[in-house]
Amino acid sequence: MNIVIIGSGNVATHLAKAFRDAKHCIVQVYSRNLAHAERLAEKVGAEAIDNLRLITDDASMYLFSITDNALLEMLPFVPRKTGTWLHTAGCLSMHVFKGYSRDYGVLYPLQTFSKTRTLNISDVPIFIESNRPDKIEKIEQLARSISPKVEYLSSEKRKYLHLSAVFACNFVNHLYALSEEILKEQHIRFDVLKPLILETADKIQSMSPHEAQTGPAVRNDTSIIEKHLEMLDDANYKEIYRLISEQIYKMCSP
Amino acid sequence: MNIVIIGSGNVATHLAKAFRDAKHCIVQVYSRNLAHAERLAEKVGAEAIDNLRLITDDASMYLFSITDNALLEMLPFVPRKTGTWLHTAGCLSMHVFKGYSRDYGVLYPLQTFSKTRTLNISDVPIFIESNRPDKIEKIEQLARSISPKVEYLSSEKRKYLHLSAVFACNFVNHLYALSEEILKEQHIRFDVLKPLILETADKIQSMSPHEAQTGPAVRNDTSIIEKHLEMLDDANYKEIYRLISEQIYKMCSP
Repeated sequence: MNIVIIGSGNVATHLAKAFRDAKHCIVQVYSRNLAHAERLAEKVGAEAIDNLRLITDDASMYLFSITDNALLEMLPFVPRKTGTWLHTAGCLSMHVFKGYSRDYGVLYPLQTFSKTRTLNISDVPIFIESNRPDKIEKIEQLARSISPKVEYLSSEKRKYLHLSAVFACNFVNHLYALSEEILKEQHIRFDVLKPLILETADKIQSMSPHEAQTGPAVRNDTSIIEKHLEMLDDANYKEIYRLISEQIYKMCSP
Repeated sequence: MNIVIIGSGNVATHLAKAFRDAKHCIVQVYSRNLAHAERLAEKVGAEAIDNLRLITDDASMYLFSITDNALLEMLPFVPRKTGTWLHTAGCLSMHVFKGYSRDYGVLYPLQTFSKTRTLNISDVPIFIESNRPDKIEKIEQLARSISPKVEYLSSEKRKYLHLSAVFACNFVNHLYALSEEILKEQHIRFDVLKPLILETADKIQSMSPHEAQTGPAVRNDTSIIEKHLEMLDDANYKEIYRLISEQIYKMCSP
């Protein structure tokens, strides 16, 4: 398929490369910042543009992979096209495209993307949606060309999936960052935590998180919990510790 | 070495098996609950006991792997022995043994242990400590017999390592549990999050967590953050979301 990529961030970059590897043709990459568009366009053999009026009519898919706010602000200025308009956002209804395009939908890849990190896109679950039942197959075909894990999911459910991913990925990563800070102050290398972090993630691949829970909170070991709270200087970290410990005990107590 | 294991919980079970596999002799397993002692003793070819006075004098290592409070309550009732007394706790000073034993120390394995889960103990970092510099080698020898990753760490630093592990493992696992709950209400399988969870843990094996951070909070995408807060019914979850998002932005903003 001929694809136009609107955006040049982490998700746009990973998807554009995956589509190129799947032998689609990336016709153009648009970004407000031409240098950014050029950087990605060069990698996928596309034309770089920074003017919405230059977007070609000759594409079957227009993939908007930009922040929700940027998309909402941009839409009134995107010229009408006959192809399918897709966004890649977790928390945005498919119907933001209503009135701007006849065929539209969503292609939401559930993964954390960093530009400098390569990952196996065929392992990424992709959730799709279409405003026209007769057009879902085309979106599915595009998604399946890069991953076998394609599922239909409504906008309403997708936003809860996105919320759960914020906890399981973004917030989890912040807890890693916080651990790193605690260790740094003690001049202990963050490396020593890495096997524990991997095992924690690996464990719930075959056990439920509920069953996998260990540590002082699930044992309600108040003497350790109190020591830890004393050791934390930062009021927010103390509060995060208190809240999560309370929740663990609540969820796991008989 | 001849080893007596005091305790029959997750850590005791994994260590006893690892020592047995490393050709040490587990002489006895003590638990207040004889059935628990028997279950572990049977697996490692040891005698099961539930009476502290039956603990043999004929061991070189006495490994206390029980909760901090249980250890503190038990110590006055443990008959004197000539071997080395060790505990496996993250947040307890080595000197809890002072006055009870002449040779004592710590053997702290940094990992999350669940009884039903097998793991590769040779990948687990072990932190050791001894009250007698001339005796540290014996503890190191025991630790090295099950893992090559052995380091000396003081009680003072160990408690911060333990605190960081509570964030990076126990709290992380709770965030997994919380994500699972959000999905369950929407009748979405937790399975779909597993590649994301693995990638999040995998990413920080080669990037710093700071560098790896993605999501609405680091972009300060307030419209998504507000939507998510509205979607959360539970006041504690809302507060966890608010606090961690605030911290992410604070930590990552330029």
